[in-house]
Amino acid sequence: MAHSLSHFCSLSVCKKDKKNYKSFGENSTSLPSSFGLQISELAYERLGKRLNRRNAIRATTVSNAKVEAGSGSLQTNGGALKSKKVMIIGGDGYCGWATALHLSNKGYEVAIVDNMVRRLFDHQLGLDSLTPISSIHNRIRRWKALTGNDIQLYIGDVCDFEFLSEAFKSFEPDAAVHFGEQRSAPYSMIDRSRAVFTQHNNVIGTLNVLFAIKEFQEECHLVKLGTMGEYGTPNIDIEEGYITITHNGRTDTLPYPKQASSFYHLSKVHDSNNIAFTCKAWGIRATDLNQGVVYGVRTDETEMHEELCNRLDYDAVFGTALNRFCVQAAVGHPLTVYGKGGQTRGYLDIRDTVQCVELAIANPADRGEFRVFNQFTEQFSVNELAALVTKAGKKLGLQVQTVSVPNPRVEAEEHYYNAKHTKLVELGLKPHLLSDSLLDSLLNFAVKYEDRVDTKQIMPGVSWKKIGAKPKTVAA
Amino acid sequence: MAHSLSHFCSLSVCKKDKKNYKSFGENSTSLPSSFGLQISELAYERLGKRLNRRNAIRATTVSNAKVEAGSGSLQTNGGALKSKKVMIIGGDGYCGWATALHLSNKGYEVAIVDNMVRRLFDHQLGLDSLTPISSIHNRIRRWKALTGNDIQLYIGDVCDFEFLSEAFKSFEPDAAVHFGEQRSAPYSMIDRSRAVFTQHNNVIGTLNVLFAIKEFQEECHLVKLGTMGEYGTPNIDIEEGYITITHNGRTDTLPYPKQASSFYHLSKVHDSNNIAFTCKAWGIRATDLNQGVVYGVRTDETEMHEELCNRLDYDAVFGTALNRFCVQAAVGHPLTVYGKGGQTRGYLDIRDTVQCVELAIANPADRGEFRVFNQFTEQFSVNELAALVTKAGKKLGLQVQTVSVPNPRVEAEEHYYNAKHTKLVELGLKPHLLSDSLLDSLLNFAVKYEDRVDTKQIMPGVSWKKIGAKPKTVAA
Repeated sequence: MAHSLSHFCSLSVCKKDKKNYKSFGENSTSLPSSFGLQISELAYERLGKRLNRRNAIRATTVSNAKVEAGSGSLQTNGGALKSKKVMIIGGDGYCGWATALHLSNKGYEVAIVDNMVRRLFDHQLGLDSLTPISSIHNRIRRWKALTGNDIQLYIGDVCDFEFLSEAFKSFEPDAAVHFGEQRSAPYSMIDRSRAVFTQHNNVIGTLNVLFAIKEFQEECHLVKLGTMGEYGTPNIDIEEGYITITHNGRTDTLPYPKQASSFYHLSKVHDSNNIAFTCKAWGIRATDLNQGVVYGVRTDETEMHEELCNRLDYDAVFGTALNRFCVQAAVGHPLTVYGKGGQTRGYLDIRDTVQCVELAIANPADRGEFRVFNQFTEQFSVNELAALVTKAGKKLGLQVQTVSVPNPRVEAEEHYYNAKHTKLVELGLKPHLLSDSLLDSLLNFAVKYEDRVDTKQIMPGVSWKKIGAKPKTVAA
Repeated sequence: MAHSLSHFCSLSVCKKDKKNYKSFGENSTSLPSSFGLQISELAYERLGKRLNRRNAIRATTVSNAKVEAGSGSLQTNGGALKSKKVMIIGGDGYCGWATALHLSNKGYEVAIVDNMVRRLFDHQLGLDSLTPISSIHNRIRRWKALTGNDIQLYIGDVCDFEFLSEAFKSFEPDAAVHFGEQRSAPYSMIDRSRAVFTQHNNVIGTLNVLFAIKEFQEECHLVKLGTMGEYGTPNIDIEEGYITITHNGRTDTLPYPKQASSFYHLSKVHDSNNIAFTCKAWGIRATDLNQGVVYGVRTDETEMHEELCNRLDYDAVFGTALNRFCVQAAVGHPLTVYGKGGQTRGYLDIRDTVQCVELAIANPADRGEFRVFNQFTEQFSVNELAALVTKAGKKLGLQVQTVSVPNPRVEAEEHYYNAKHTKLVELGLKPHLLSDSLLDSLLNFAVKYEDRVDTKQIMPGVSWKKIGAKPKTVAA
């Protein structure tokens, strides 16, 4: 088989003679901790005693000699153009993986930082992506084989500052795209320990990234994934990050008031406030991308090979509205509308996620600037989405029904919603609007993998009101 | 000596037969962790094998039989009136201790929850209160001797949910006053680890308090200490928590925009956002007291006996503007004005802090209500305070000079400032405005203890811009 690759991960070790490199643990004998990951010890044993246990672990692509070329070239971009170096934190996730490949394809030098905890959540909760996804190591090897482009891989937790410091000093990013957060509202509402985990992980991880930029790479542009959910559903137009208020005869432009409605969404509000302060106090350059709900699975890069396939979540914890509806339609499960279905949000195609991040990087914020972009292309209510999926399903011969289920969340089900989203368009975003062809493609994708659907994971099992202090047991 | 008390702490153990009580560690053999405290092991050894190691530790006042009466009565209020039970988290601190005594004196049944970490900070940084302060155990024994009132003491960390749960289940508070946070902006800006500690400690501690209320005491009124610093210095009037905005022809009342300017102040913003969400989602009743800068040291209760004396911080990390100036004037150190001195803030006498908390408890928020009060009585600029202290010093024969030092903070030094503070007045607050007699008293207090002043602690040593990732060394 031309494309078969070993499932063994090849580990390389950063050498001490690398510029600016200092090994881990010069004052310590312990390896950097990572959340729930134990790959390091095993991999070390395999690689034998020639490895210095004190050096940083960095899983990289296998050497070119071992790789069979795909459609791409073995020539790296490195010699041809002066790549900007982009660190993708959370680069194994849904948005992160698509972005990493897109930027690599565009000639950026990419490093992925990830602790693989998103895959651990699936193991813990008994969930799985609709699409089969390869290991990060195979993904990166395949990408190298197809395009000749290296993607460096730093396995570790950004909450571990020692690890993060070494990653920054070693890679020296010009931009750090921070997707590396627990990103599910329902996950954050399962029980106390997961609420605490979400806020600790997201807030402290982002603080560490800010300190790493200040300490090691002060010109580095932070591109931080926020969420449109930070704004809630105010009864006035939502602006992009700031609002000019005239009050008692005086005027000021202030941060737009936030009304987040889960511990996850709140963690993003906390991040935004922390980042804004460091821009002012330290001169950090930052772009906060308040992203809407992302749909779709294919990008130009991920569709190059099945080993590059992105994840697609349809379960009630990690699945988001439109993706979830398409999978439900494919397997004959009624579309689950929470409550009245008037909940309106901003949506975007994952092909626009990667485009937006690229635009942000190519047009960085100034030193000291805290720039906020609302990253979505269209607004839909849940009922509108259900109607669109129903119509598209009919064309494919699917019988699509809709059911209203009790809303597990605490949110307005009928409300005003008008959010601005012009700044990314001004930078050059060409939106992929939701179309019949996209819905066809997504539905066909779901039909293709319908045997992989676990229908037990579809109905909401997490309640905003019933969350308790006791650890929630997971049904087998 | 009528008032001498042993320095040994008497420990009692919550019995399993207490209503709703479950012992620690039913599924664990470990004691609850507490930040930097090791008193439990030692105390256990003293008390011998009759104590079950698995039971919760609760240091209480010594039994009445061992106490010699002071000016108060041995009669408890318990029999005479149906006390409301108030838990004071952080009840050994500057505001917490004064509040605990005040509420106890007013007939409330009081429990203090504290991990003593504020005293640990002093040990770590080489700081000390101007005033000599007794141990929490002696403080409580003295209070009992003077008034007959018991104050229960739960030693532990609210970040330890197992500990906090037991405290809630055992005491069953009607109100929880949460002072239990790292409360110094400079402390949070010393280095990365203290920035992370501050946000983790404050945010997770408050999340735990919210979960404890939801799980064990859902009617309990949370009275949370916030800060006026959450608002920053906008160029429009500051309202109490919310602002009505008309924008593009539509109107809504939204959370007042926040612009905090240290990791400490940011932690309070995060808390406010988290609490607001739980009021909406769970029906928590909460009052957020956005307190100004507190000055003064004496309250009616703390001046009853020197063992009840409150702490007074004058150092550059924990000392706040007016208190610090009085101590500087007393020892002949120039008043240290940071930058131009036009920084204007709200201030209040500590006698008003205790009055405001009492008013909030006596008039609780409704279920689901997130109520915000701006808790201060007057606005002053730093230059105005320096002038007042200079004038009051002269009357006492002190030569008071003022020096402008480079501002270690990142903040506007000349700005508009007009903050509303009517809601507590509407509830009945009778302010103690800053007066010559208060300044006389505070200056005399400082002169009395001038031998205890360490002038090396006065000049600012923490820089908002120079904070680094490496742990900051502490000068001996």
